[in-house]
Amino acid sequence: MTNDRLPPSRLAARMRAIEPFHAMDVLSRARELERQGRSIVHMEVGEPDFPTPRPVLDAAARALAGGSLPYTEGLGLRPLREAIARFYRTRHGLEVSPERVVVTAGGSGALLLAMGVLVEPGEEVLMADPSYPCNRQFVRVMGGEPRCLPVGPETRWQPTAELLERHWTARTAAALVASPANPTGTLIEPAELARIAALTEARGGALVVDEIYHGLTYGLDARTALELPGRVFVVNSFSKYFDMTGWRLGWLVAPPEYVRELEKLQQNLYICPSHLAQRAALAAFEPATLEVLEARRGELRARRDFLLPALRELGFELPLVPEGAFYLYAGCGRLAEDSFAFALEILERAGVALTPGLDFGRHQPERHLRVSYTTSMEQLRVAVERLRGFLAAR
Amino acid sequence: MTNDRLPPSRLAARMRAIEPFHAMDVLSRARELERQGRSIVHMEVGEPDFPTPRPVLDAAARALAGGSLPYTEGLGLRPLREAIARFYRTRHGLEVSPERVVVTAGGSGALLLAMGVLVEPGEEVLMADPSYPCNRQFVRVMGGEPRCLPVGPETRWQPTAELLERHWTARTAAALVASPANPTGTLIEPAELARIAALTEARGGALVVDEIYHGLTYGLDARTALELPGRVFVVNSFSKYFDMTGWRLGWLVAPPEYVRELEKLQQNLYICPSHLAQRAALAAFEPATLEVLEARRGELRARRDFLLPALRELGFELPLVPEGAFYLYAGCGRLAEDSFAFALEILERAGVALTPGLDFGRHQPERHLRVSYTTSMEQLRVAVERLRGFLAAR
Repeated sequence: MTNDRLPPSRLAARMRAIEPFHAMDVLSRARELERQGRSIVHMEVGEPDFPTPRPVLDAAARALAGGSLPYTEGLGLRPLREAIARFYRTRHGLEVSPERVVVTAGGSGALLLAMGVLVEPGEEVLMADPSYPCNRQFVRVMGGEPRCLPVGPETRWQPTAELLERHWTARTAAALVASPANPTGTLIEPAELARIAALTEARGGALVVDEIYHGLTYGLDARTALELPGRVFVVNSFSKYFDMTGWRLGWLVAPPEYVRELEKLQQNLYICPSHLAQRAALAAFEPATLEVLEARRGELRARRDFLLPALRELGFELPLVPEGAFYLYAGCGRLAEDSFAFALEILERAGVALTPGLDFGRHQPERHLRVSYTTSMEQLRVAVERLRGFLAAR
Repeated sequence: MTNDRLPPSRLAARMRAIEPFHAMDVLSRARELERQGRSIVHMEVGEPDFPTPRPVLDAAARALAGGSLPYTEGLGLRPLREAIARFYRTRHGLEVSPERVVVTAGGSGALLLAMGVLVEPGEEVLMADPSYPCNRQFVRVMGGEPRCLPVGPETRWQPTAELLERHWTARTAAALVASPANPTGTLIEPAELARIAALTEARGGALVVDEIYHGLTYGLDARTALELPGRVFVVNSFSKYFDMTGWRLGWLVAPPEYVRELEKLQQNLYICPSHLAQRAALAAFEPATLEVLEARRGELRARRDFLLPALRELGFELPLVPEGAFYLYAGCGRLAEDSFAFALEILERAGVALTPGLDFGRHQPERHLRVSYTTSMEQLRVAVERLRGFLAAR
């Protein structure tokens, strides 16, 4: 019999490039400590702490009562594609044809499908470093190479058209950007995004824009890249703003000529997204749901506005106020040499779980921690006091 | 703006190898006819006509009432992994560690993950022709090449160890077999499967066995490939026997040394399978559920036993009695030259929707139709009478 401490004797090379999430090491240790009776404040988590809104749960319950949940069309239920298109009209004043909307198994499914139709083996996809770790793997699975461009506070942790242009080669298939971004919470300015779209189009490439944190911006509404002309693919999700993480539902809006290709790929790789999640999501755009979500958005803003100055006061470097998502990408270079060891030390000694920068790239990960404010204001206050005590005692 | 009648100006080459499902053409036309008021008997569908069992729906309703459905662990909920492992004990008398069970987004997710860890770009995966069309695409997405080996009634439409050995080369990564198989409904004999496992192991490759139609065998229980030693990956699903197609939930049992790799890939590409589907599936193995499912299995057997001789009598060639699934792969070479045109003609003139062989491979597709018995006995009788009238009038 096989032994799970030995490496697999046959393993595709792509797996060697895929690192485990270091956040998981923190989470495992956090759970171990909790089993020992320790209290831990969880700020390592990349999902909202709010339950799925009641109208969405009710819609799912009604679908369940019907009992019939067969496969849906590969592109998703037509009424849901129409509801998503209407949302662009009401939120953005933008006409988007439902024909262009592909319902997917989360933002993950949307990213996999987009890379599947766009990226040839050996081609590169440009993206920011730091950025969402899985983005690199969607590219690698298709035989492509993620090309991670270091960015910092001077460009609000976002790539610029100028930076992308400098790294664009004949092998570049696409640029993948996120606005708001994980782990930094920053937006790309509309004028800059327009320049990026013009660049990718001029170079015969595609622009994939991750908008899964749309709706979670504070003091402003993010504009959608669907306003822009050219080969623009927009990824969105019901996970973050709509508080439906575990449902695994998202969508992709693609240029019309790609829809048939995306449909083929979805049919083959997924058959369809979850039928029940789709029926539930039909209630996601109802006024009663949006009212709940907007109140939660206010709560998240209040958390950010509490946490950011508090962390600054403790010595973390946060030169920017991120406009969105629910993360602060806190510089800890003045406090520690290695953010991974520091995260584990904070966990052990202060009972606060944070994500080390290592998960997000190779650009100064040792100097950064991602701090999620996906826990209550009360817990955030506890965390800040624990960090204060811990840092004072060092 | 773009025009959806033009081909995409940038498209990964892999997409050219992915054909649309011809069954969809039949389905679209069937729906058009139904909108015109025509009655159609649907025998082109690859999913059971039974609703999800009540205890499973009830478990989902209880999970919904809780309201909290965050991401689960990448490998799936531990209690579900344990329930699946227990099922191997009760059904097969086999000890399978829950550690080896990876819960996936349908059988589709299991196949994608298995190919992801096993197949290098340029490597081949051996499989039967005819077989489930998506299997070829899971290989292609990983840059591999599906190598489809023609099989016929003389080997019960299944590859043999001898056939696989003849086509095994230095570039072969794995053999992918299905038992029972789609579209033919046949099993691989346990002794033959053992020989296949021994061959793949001896050649340093892997054996991936699709067991998603397990439970849907008539007059016998299929043995699981997990009995066999070596690098054996077993794919299963809650879709078919458990009547949960639209929920998109399945599982993979892998050699222990691959579990960590599969976990990494799942975290990156899917985050996790649907939480709600996992909670629902916890009730799938309860005695009350299994009682319902066994009654349905009896109904499917009765349908097969009615339909097979009826189709033979009409002139379709069905030299074998398939042991499982819910398909008959009917030879129509004595009735027509081109099964695709024949399927459309049958649809138009007889109001019966069937799937042309073309979806399943290149080995005599024009001589075969897949006939699903996923509709009521009453509808099957209507279909047979319509076919009789249609054939008599030609």
